[in-house]
Amino acid sequence: MACDTSPVSGTDTLPISGADTSPAAQAFAPAEREAVYRAIHQRRDMRHFSGGQVAPELLRRLLEAAHHAPSVGFMQPWRFIRISRPDTRARLHALVEAERVQTAQALGVRQEEFMRLKVQGVLDCAELLAVALSDGRERHIFGRRTLPQMDLASASCAIQNLWLAARAEGLGLGWVSIFDPLAVARVLGLPEGAEVIALLCLGPVSAFYEQPMLQQERWARRAALGDLVFDEQWGQPSALFAEGPALESD
Amino acid sequence: MACDTSPVSGTDTLPISGADTSPAAQAFAPAEREAVYRAIHQRRDMRHFSGGQVAPELLRRLLEAAHHAPSVGFMQPWRFIRISRPDTRARLHALVEAERVQTAQALGVRQEEFMRLKVQGVLDCAELLAVALSDGRERHIFGRRTLPQMDLASASCAIQNLWLAARAEGLGLGWVSIFDPLAVARVLGLPEGAEVIALLCLGPVSAFYEQPMLQQERWARRAALGDLVFDEQWGQPSALFAEGPALESD
Repeated sequence: MACDTSPVSGTDTLPISGADTSPAAQAFAPAEREAVYRAIHQRRDMRHFSGGQVAPELLRRLLEAAHHAPSVGFMQPWRFIRISRPDTRARLHALVEAERVQTAQALGVRQEEFMRLKVQGVLDCAELLAVALSDGRERHIFGRRTLPQMDLASASCAIQNLWLAARAEGLGLGWVSIFDPLAVARVLGLPEGAEVIALLCLGPVSAFYEQPMLQQERWARRAALGDLVFDEQWGQPSALFAEGPALESD
Repeated sequence: MACDTSPVSGTDTLPISGADTSPAAQAFAPAEREAVYRAIHQRRDMRHFSGGQVAPELLRRLLEAAHHAPSVGFMQPWRFIRISRPDTRARLHALVEAERVQTAQALGVRQEEFMRLKVQGVLDCAELLAVALSDGRERHIFGRRTLPQMDLASASCAIQNLWLAARAEGLGLGWVSIFDPLAVARVLGLPEGAEVIALLCLGPVSAFYEQPMLQQERWARRAALGDLVFDEQWGQPSALFAEGPALESD
């Protein structure tokens, strides 16, 4: 494979646009590349936190990582609200609990199983961040005339950046979306047109799950990648995975 | 800052759940952490590609990275269609061009400026991947009863994983969302209920932009992070950024 067999020089001093424009020359050094994959593969959606604190510098670094996400038309739709007050956290936790019951009822046969999956992080995590899409998004048409939901796509990329950076820093993160967004918007004073998309629980954890928690709890299993990739047309199996089963990792 | 001042031992052999459960012990080694931030900060939304190829092994690795994204209720809604046929690419490019004209008209005063930003990647990139949300998503209620759009959020995290991994591999990626999704769905044979959310242009590039392309082209500028972060309530400036202007980088 081209990138692995070609020599890669030290990358810290490598100019971003150098004379050698091959992918191998622009690739990270092998150890750096491995670190990126390590963050991707060891990131977990955490529900158990061990309290503690996140130093302000570290939190700024994580938010900078989020802010360096791609955004459609460079609109940067993400906004972050840092919630420290115990009474606000308690109100948000109550909203999550209320929606947990509603979701369990909607799930029918799996409701008991679902109710065993607690969402305690909203109270226990070191930092609780609400992520919202800004108001005034209708002004941004670039890349959104036919796909207005690309604002959410951009903000989700920002959350993923934050998540990976947090993993590299040894901090857990969980994305809670079990709440009534209008009720949460009222608690946080959102203006008309802004929308909450996430309550992020962030902070120290006693251990990262070895597998995705919902797989450990047998809620669902990771699909074989080869079943999700097609060639040319929907449903046509990809030759990329023709030679054997997809690599299975956790 | 806690994570930087505490000793961090070698991490490759560090058990994920070890005896020392402090963030410092679970953090990546400094060089690994830097690599994760490097990918985040040097990732670019690329529009210029230099042809070439992506080796099958490398493409599988990138798709595995995407597949290791978080997903609401572990639903894994992402599907990938790899488009190699020149006639299909030409049809998709024509759809993008048609929507570019429509978007330019909707933009009004900025339409000429917008039209100068070409989308040639659909034809020039080594690999063109359409990303779609699967059909049958209505069965997944976990985390989606009140926020059904969390399927898109999950698939966006998958794309961001792929994007960061591609950057580490020295490959560029651009997310095109300038198209009529129903027309693209017809070209790719999507079933009822599935939705295209991205045409991803992937492959070698002659150089990564030093800044986001839309900033280089003076379409928009990166906001100061401190303007996007609030404490407790929307609109209340965060103490995190009280001491001075936010770090500005591109």
